[in-house]
Amino acid sequence: MENKRLGRQTVRLAHPPAVHSFSNIGGKMESQGPLSDYFDELCPDSFFGAKTWEQGESAMQQRVLNKALAKGNLNPRDIDCIFAGDLLNQCIGTSFGLRDFGIPLYGVYGACSTMGESLSLAALLLGGGYAHTAAALTSSHFCTAERQYRMPMPYGNQRTPTAQWTATAAGCCILSTEGQGPFVTHVTCGKIVDKGITDANNMGAAMAPAAYDTLAALFRETKTAPSDYDLICTGDLGKLGHEIVVDFFRRDGIDMSRNYRDCGLMLYDLEKQDMHAGGSGCGCSACVLNGYLLRGMRAGKWKRIIIAPTGALLSPTSSFQKESIPSICHAVVLSNSKEDF
Amino acid sequence: MENKRLGRQTVRLAHPPAVHSFSNIGGKMESQGPLSDYFDELCPDSFFGAKTWEQGESAMQQRVLNKALAKGNLNPRDIDCIFAGDLLNQCIGTSFGLRDFGIPLYGVYGACSTMGESLSLAALLLGGGYAHTAAALTSSHFCTAERQYRMPMPYGNQRTPTAQWTATAAGCCILSTEGQGPFVTHVTCGKIVDKGITDANNMGAAMAPAAYDTLAALFRETKTAPSDYDLICTGDLGKLGHEIVVDFFRRDGIDMSRNYRDCGLMLYDLEKQDMHAGGSGCGCSACVLNGYLLRGMRAGKWKRIIIAPTGALLSPTSSFQKESIPSICHAVVLSNSKEDF
Repeated sequence: MENKRLGRQTVRLAHPPAVHSFSNIGGKMESQGPLSDYFDELCPDSFFGAKTWEQGESAMQQRVLNKALAKGNLNPRDIDCIFAGDLLNQCIGTSFGLRDFGIPLYGVYGACSTMGESLSLAALLLGGGYAHTAAALTSSHFCTAERQYRMPMPYGNQRTPTAQWTATAAGCCILSTEGQGPFVTHVTCGKIVDKGITDANNMGAAMAPAAYDTLAALFRETKTAPSDYDLICTGDLGKLGHEIVVDFFRRDGIDMSRNYRDCGLMLYDLEKQDMHAGGSGCGCSACVLNGYLLRGMRAGKWKRIIIAPTGALLSPTSSFQKESIPSICHAVVLSNSKEDF
Repeated sequence: MENKRLGRQTVRLAHPPAVHSFSNIGGKMESQGPLSDYFDELCPDSFFGAKTWEQGESAMQQRVLNKALAKGNLNPRDIDCIFAGDLLNQCIGTSFGLRDFGIPLYGVYGACSTMGESLSLAALLLGGGYAHTAAALTSSHFCTAERQYRMPMPYGNQRTPTAQWTATAAGCCILSTEGQGPFVTHVTCGKIVDKGITDANNMGAAMAPAAYDTLAALFRETKTAPSDYDLICTGDLGKLGHEIVVDFFRRDGIDMSRNYRDCGLMLYDLEKQDMHAGGSGCGCSACVLNGYLLRGMRAGKWKRIIIAPTGALLSPTSSFQKESIPSICHAVVLSNSKEDF
């Protein structure tokens, strides 16, 4: 059987790569949230033992990769290739975090969709017969993101009600051509979608149309409906973005209310933790996938899920120049069965 | 025949994708250099008709993609997927440049190695049977890079002798599973290499060890020598970096002096144009490849070449934090024959 392009955006993998091992790491806020039992490491020190927050973010990537290697009984030489990136300018979380491993690297930039993008590309690499083992990795850090995108931390900037909280977290997933799974059976590549939202404090609204676009393509091209999945998770749309996606599908006569959740709404207790619209950042979907979701799949809680991280492809410069917010969403189908639809 | 991993970093493509069409664009300095006859468009306006330099860089990406589509008699619907990125924070050159095309996008970040990385991934995608047509695209802009990495332009910053000049240029290469070629026969994925150079005005020295590492892997894994190629081109090492690479290989008893060049030394007349150590930026290797080099291959001037763009994975923040400069190099073998070694 050959790899099959089901439509413009979706590929069905003829030999679905298996999740070999996975790992996640979080910070203090993540340790106080409802998913705290599903982390490999929770570190109360926001510097992760380093001197600066940026170096701390690199340390997170380093630790989470080491942990995924250890859990999979692998060493760096066993990884043929890694796909990784982050939110920092020039993706320095990745450059410095992965510097000492000596693993061939393709750097990716998909903003908060990075976990979806890197997992897609790792799966495509293995499915193409190019490699046996590949890793997908990303991170985000509240303090580096605030400093870079919004205000210096000591300024104590007031957040708007639609603002989201950048997760201090990282996740790593190692795929292999052999193994027990879950398996990556399909990937859907996103297109840039920009509906003209300019409020950089309302990312959920900006990214929701991209999530809708990619999920709609996935359903259309695989000829499936939301009810064919046990769980559908977007990355970090938060409260508002989640509502918009449900609403968009409702207009198409498609019911998303039963099994559609958002990692940004799962990672924190929005009320108790004063999280406003929810969690965000590359690390949000990365730590939820590589903890709660994959553990749940291995435990048989869900058999087939979609993970669809969304990214807002803006920068402070583009916002200053009054541009709207282009967004993208990359979706991956994970299934406990290789022989999926 | 199946795709074959020849070693840790190099893949030989069983069905080498063909270059379907290619295009490049440059600015004023590029129009005054020795390769000016090998551009599809040379624009004296550094804003490329836009209001800001960043928007101008996006306009370059837009124009160069449109040109490559037109030269290949394609429309955006014919492109299954695009791999693109740039040097700007959060790769906004790409996000805004490609926003209106509706083409599925995997964003990449490899700093100035982006042309090598995007071309590699596009070739791997096609070689895996996932798609028929894919594009690789990148850009850089002198004014956006100066503003972001060094000093605001109006400051009239003095440049050091080892400094390089960021090319205002973009290049796009469209690959297809069918066609006359040249063909992408091999790709070599780079590892991060960091020899401790901290001078952000001496990128050539920082990146040269990465170029050496990747080229050495390519030669070793394909069991070839420099003399097996008509031309070997790194991306933007400039004068000093080029010398270092030649020197490194000389120590291994390998002669690179005959056919090894660097795009950063080809794009400008270093003396007349006061270019110090040479050209740099994602756009440097992108415009040289998608003009002078591919035109030369089609004309039969060279039969088999290596293009090996190098990237410095630093940011101003990492330099302020006294970090050294991690670098990477992604190499691609282009040949007029599909049935290559």
